[in-house]
Amino acid sequence: MSFINPDFMLTNDAARELYHDSAENMPIIDYHCHLVPQQIAENIQFRDITQLWLVDGHYGDHYKWRQMRGNGVSEEYLTGGSKSSWETFEKWAATMPYLMRNPLYHWTQLELARVFGIYKILKPETAREIYEECNEKLASPEFRGQALIRKFGVETVCTTDDPADDLRWHKMIAENPFGTKVLPAWRPDKAMAIEDPQSYKSYLNKLGEAADMEIRSYNELMEALSKRHKFFDSMGCKLSDHGLETFYASDYTYSEIERIFANVLNGKQPNAEDLDKFRSAFLHDAAVMDAEAGWAQQFHVGAIRNNNSKMFGLIGPDTGYDAIHDLPVAAAGHKFLDSLARKDKLAKTILYCLNPKDNEVLATMAYTFNDGTCPGKMQFGAAWWFLDQEDGMRKQLNALSSLGLLSRFVGMLTDSRSFISYPRHEYFRRILCDVLGKEIEDGKLPHSELPQIHTMVKDICYNNAKNYFNF
Amino acid sequence: MSFINPDFMLTNDAARELYHDSAENMPIIDYHCHLVPQQIAENIQFRDITQLWLVDGHYGDHYKWRQMRGNGVSEEYLTGGSKSSWETFEKWAATMPYLMRNPLYHWTQLELARVFGIYKILKPETAREIYEECNEKLASPEFRGQALIRKFGVETVCTTDDPADDLRWHKMIAENPFGTKVLPAWRPDKAMAIEDPQSYKSYLNKLGEAADMEIRSYNELMEALSKRHKFFDSMGCKLSDHGLETFYASDYTYSEIERIFANVLNGKQPNAEDLDKFRSAFLHDAAVMDAEAGWAQQFHVGAIRNNNSKMFGLIGPDTGYDAIHDLPVAAAGHKFLDSLARKDKLAKTILYCLNPKDNEVLATMAYTFNDGTCPGKMQFGAAWWFLDQEDGMRKQLNALSSLGLLSRFVGMLTDSRSFISYPRHEYFRRILCDVLGKEIEDGKLPHSELPQIHTMVKDICYNNAKNYFNF
Amino acid sequence: MSFINPDFMLTNDAARELYHDSAENMPIIDYHCHLVPQQIAENIQFRDITQLWLVDGHYGDHYKWRQMRGNGVSEEYLTGGSKSSWETFEKWAATMPYLMRNPLYHWTQLELARVFGIYKILKPETAREIYEECNEKLASPEFRGQALIRKFGVETVCTTDDPADDLRWHKMIAENPFGTKVLPAWRPDKAMAIEDPQSYKSYLNKLGEAADMEIRSYNELMEALSKRHKFFDSMGCKLSDHGLETFYASDYTYSEIERIFANVLNGKQPNAEDLDKFRSAFLHDAAVMDAEAGWAQQFHVGAIRNNNSKMFGLIGPDTGYDAIHDLPVAAAGHKFLDSLARKDKLAKTILYCLNPKDNEVLATMAYTFNDGTCPGKMQFGAAWWFLDQEDGMRKQLNALSSLGLLSRFVGMLTDSRSFISYPRHEYFRRILCDVLGKEIEDGKLPHSELPQIHTMVKDICYNNAKNYFNF
Repeated sequence: MSFINPDFMLTNDAARELYHDSAENMPIIDYHCHLVPQQIAENIQFRDITQLWLVDGHYGDHYKWRQMRGNGVSEEYLTGGSKSSWETFEKWAATMPYLMRNPLYHWTQLELARVFGIYKILKPETAREIYEECNEKLASPEFRGQALIRKFGVETVCTTDDPADDLRWHKMIAENPFGTKVLPAWRPDKAMAIEDPQSYKSYLNKLGEAADMEIRSYNELMEALSKRHKFFDSMGCKLSDHGLETFYASDYTYSEIERIFANVLNGKQPNAEDLDKFRSAFLHDAAVMDAEAGWAQQFHVGAIRNNNSKMFGLIGPDTGYDAIHDLPVAAAGHKFLDSLARKDKLAKTILYCLNPKDNEVLATMAYTFNDGTCPGKMQFGAAWWFLDQEDGMRKQLNALSSLGLLSRFVGMLTDSRSFISYPRHEYFRRILCDVLGKEIEDGKLPHSELPQIHTMVKDICYNNAKNYFNF
Repeated sequence: MSFINPDFMLTNDAARELYHDSAENMPIIDYHCHLVPQQIAENIQFRDITQLWLVDGHYGDHYKWRQMRGNGVSEEYLTGGSKSSWETFEKWAATMPYLMRNPLYHWTQLELARVFGIYKILKPETAREIYEECNEKLASPEFRGQALIRKFGVETVCTTDDPADDLRWHKMIAENPFGTKVLPAWRPDKAMAIEDPQSYKSYLNKLGEAADMEIRSYNELMEALSKRHKFFDSMGCKLSDHGLETFYASDYTYSEIERIFANVLNGKQPNAEDLDKFRSAFLHDAAVMDAEAGWAQQFHVGAIRNNNSKMFGLIGPDTGYDAIHDLPVAAAGHKFLDSLARKDKLAKTILYCLNPKDNEVLATMAYTFNDGTCPGKMQFGAAWWFLDQEDGMRKQLNALSSLGLLSRFVGMLTDSRSFISYPRHEYFRRILCDVLGKEIEDGKLPHSELPQIHTMVKDICYNNAKNYFNF
Repeated sequence: MSFINPDFMLTNDAARELYHDSAENMPIIDYHCHLVPQQIAENIQFRDITQLWLVDGHYGDHYKWRQMRGNGVSEEYLTGGSKSSWETFEKWAATMPYLMRNPLYHWTQLELARVFGIYKILKPETAREIYEECNEKLASPEFRGQALIRKFGVETVCTTDDPADDLRWHKMIAENPFGTKVLPAWRPDKAMAIEDPQSYKSYLNKLGEAADMEIRSYNELMEALSKRHKFFDSMGCKLSDHGLETFYASDYTYSEIERIFANVLNGKQPNAEDLDKFRSAFLHDAAVMDAEAGWAQQFHVGAIRNNNSKMFGLIGPDTGYDAIHDLPVAAAGHKFLDSLARKDKLAKTILYCLNPKDNEVLATMAYTFNDGTCPGKMQFGAAWWFLDQEDGMRKQLNALSSLGLLSRFVGMLTDSRSFISYPRHEYFRRILCDVLGKEIEDGKLPHSELPQIHTMVKDICYNNAKNYFNF
């Protein structure tokens, strides 16, 4: 039996039944990812498996890069650009045997199986053969970007877009539909990033252009964002996203905020207190916009980024030098959400943490602001990024189950830039079914309610997200 | 076989043997709960299952409320008071199928089984039938408050009482014994709550009346508390309790404390530093009182409360808007305990955390202050409130076992206001036996020492608490 | 079958195969321990099992002391010195039955089995018999210190030594080899400890003497340390170690550091800010020394020490009054490592945490600084001290596996002062094999790659450390 077999990760009978009957064939709603809209619109044809998997110009899979560096692979094979596709791929194949128990081991084999029908284990001995088989297949039209997405039954994809983006690629995709809905999602992180006045000012210019107005004040910033928010809404956007170190909820007045904003425009770096005030105001006002538009909002909390300044100088952000932060989140998180709930301006909300120490905190925080207006309004989101692995998922599922309603969970997302990361949904579904199946077999879930458990699985895999986001 | 069956939660033979032979029939000492003494004394007859389970005037089960809100149930069914008992119950029954993997699912079925002999799963289809059967039974004398407590073999109950309380209901119960000892426990949180000078002053008036003296200084506050402490002691009180965000152990002088106290009496809100000093002094002095009286003291650390200000304004505290905090606890916790140990004024102590990140910290903190005067003097307390569920309990048991003496654990408590929450002791016992049984079967505990393991189970279920508190 | 049997802790067939074929017989490299060099050099003969296990003059096993105190054993049996060896041993035997699920229970039985060939369970009923059998054996030459170490196949031991140490005992051992290499390791904690100017100054005198120079400035401190560093290097030292509450990475200038140092020499206690600056400078400069010497460096982060001031006054440090701290580590940790990486002065590094909340943080922090120069350069170190138990190890293995390369892990160490704590390596190996075996049986690791998994086991047990440290 091959490693990737129908019952992979399913360690009990009930799990196998749940998975095959109710999880396996549900469509995918990938409501948060980093696919590049242009690549979808242009229906990208991949040069080879190295481009698809490892290095694509300035980008690539920093998950893999981190582990290759850990395995002693030098930068010339990764971001250095001085090695051939094969040489880079060979280094990845040589790293594979050392990846056992890392999620990349499972993901790699799942992607080989699901995309290329390859069930061999990738390792030095099989590297050349797999490399060639993948590349051959990638040359055919059935392996272009859109076909890859369709292959996985993806109903909807939400990309991650800057408010200044003109969404031209989304428009092109909408005009040339290929079976998967591709919608923008609103990520205004740059509009909050006053810590670097220089970059911020040039960002404001871009945003102003997009909104067809000058931005000379915080008030005008919000006006410009509001115009773009409406434009995104008109393009089908239904949710926002914020990447944060922690929550911000300092007290502030708008005259303070205007002063801070003016100083930044004058090139003055804000101090810690002003930064906090500005972020607090920005997050609040952005959240109000979401509530008024009827969108859902997401908060991804707890990354510490760009920690390796030497490599940041050489190759920039998102290259594998981020990590898990450990700031407190409870006090500011509650205060922030309360400031919205108090005004009836709290949108549907998904709280994600990157540090498992925050699982229970975010799960209870979310459930402190449910208001009975809809089931599962406040969500403790899926295990994310570094935590997107079996141990991380089980912890998230356990915290959510113990402190809230697993049945109302909107489920998995890829958070990925890759066209073939959809097996992460499969992986999640297998783990979910394994967790539930074990509890059925242990008598912790009632056998008599099996139909309800099947419903729960279908809901978490698909229906909950469908109803929640209402794309 | 019904869902709640004799071997519920017991997944191995050794666990079943341990549970049925040594856990199942041990009496219960519920040394920390929130039962309302008046309801015990008056031997409350419940109008219906909705009053018993869900909504009782201004009170009710905020555990259930949180999940119902999460399931989209609006406030009119909960605290709104505009819906009938049946309508509220129906909403609870409709929430049940979505509660699978949440402890409330298990608790609900256990309570139906143990109190009402109902083994059907509560869900919309069974709601009416179960509602009527419960209500019919609740109308009979065997389902009045005292009988419910007796049903579970509860030997002793400790309520949670304010120092200003006259304990009249405890007196009445003592004079009309019903088989379960009902003792007061000392919870002086209000006497520490100077952050709201207005409420604090009116509290001081109540306390002063109870102590028959005027309270014009911190010194007099302590004098009044000392008088009440002695009165509580005379009423059989053997333990105190403090609900804290974290520990407090700032340096202070008593002249500072008197100044802070005087300012509060003058209506001045203390700043953060003064608040910390005051709390540090108060906690210390309260702890000395406990040590001198030979009581045990409890610290429940890590809740962040009343986070939803809109709902707090509408329906007040303890209504389901609290959550898990994430303040550091180690530095202040050690300093606080050390300040007592240094003077030989450290009472028997139980440290509880609400955030699982603190499990290992509190377990080692407790064991840093054992002084060999009695076994298990310093306790890392049971998984509490949000953590009172299988995952939370297993983590607490593992941390305690790995870092201390599980065998000396004083065990479970309900922490509940409900007359029928005693199955939580059963639930804990089943999980404890499952943990131990699994290790026996895996050869991690020696089969030859089975008698000792049975002793351990009995001790944790009952004997340890009996010896520790000495009621 | 006895409790300690060949398959102890191995709960599945694959685990048993892995352990017996690839783990059991690998040599031990104990790259971090606290063995006393003099005791090795003098080939200590133990008076009795109490000296070996429990109390040895001012020292002894504070792991055991903590639990004995928790079991109600008073100080006279431990550090008091007023009780006979037998009386102390008897108290330990009486504590044993209460230790089930604590690692000491397993360690004790493993040590009895592996050192003395005793498979009986230690408890009051067997205490006398075991006491006598152990003592009889300890009187023979095969139970002297060096033979005990040899018994376990220990290839290399690294002790923990102060820069001022003259390493005379290491020299003596090197000149009289007994089959195990005994190397010094560099622990300059005292050279950083300016918080107590009085002790610090007398330490500087010792260090200055050792370096044959006067230390009147921070610059001279570094010069002296550098001389000693070279001397340690000449004695075979290959790694350093720092015991820290958290990381330190404040901004500073060397003129500030010299001012702070001068103030300390003048007896002035540094304030918190100065302390942080000094530690930041010291750690950085010490790390540069390690990088330039090609050593590996270790950071043991997260203890809060000497919390019981009364007992500290009576019996000093390392007597069982330390605990797990909960300071944040991410921001300073990254900044510290970045300051080294930026200059290409980042040595091979092992990061250990004492609080499991930091597992994922340290695992990602380490992998943020791999630079591809060697496999596994940045290590998330083994579960340590309080976490050196099954639950702690599993968490460490899971965090490392999910976030990095388990296969490149340098593995276990004893961190112990005891001559017979080597079964902790066995214990770790059994747990490692159990984890891997379970995943093989669950189909999470591919059966086809079994040879690679055996290689992984051998590497983690021995080869990785051998290659990493290059002793």
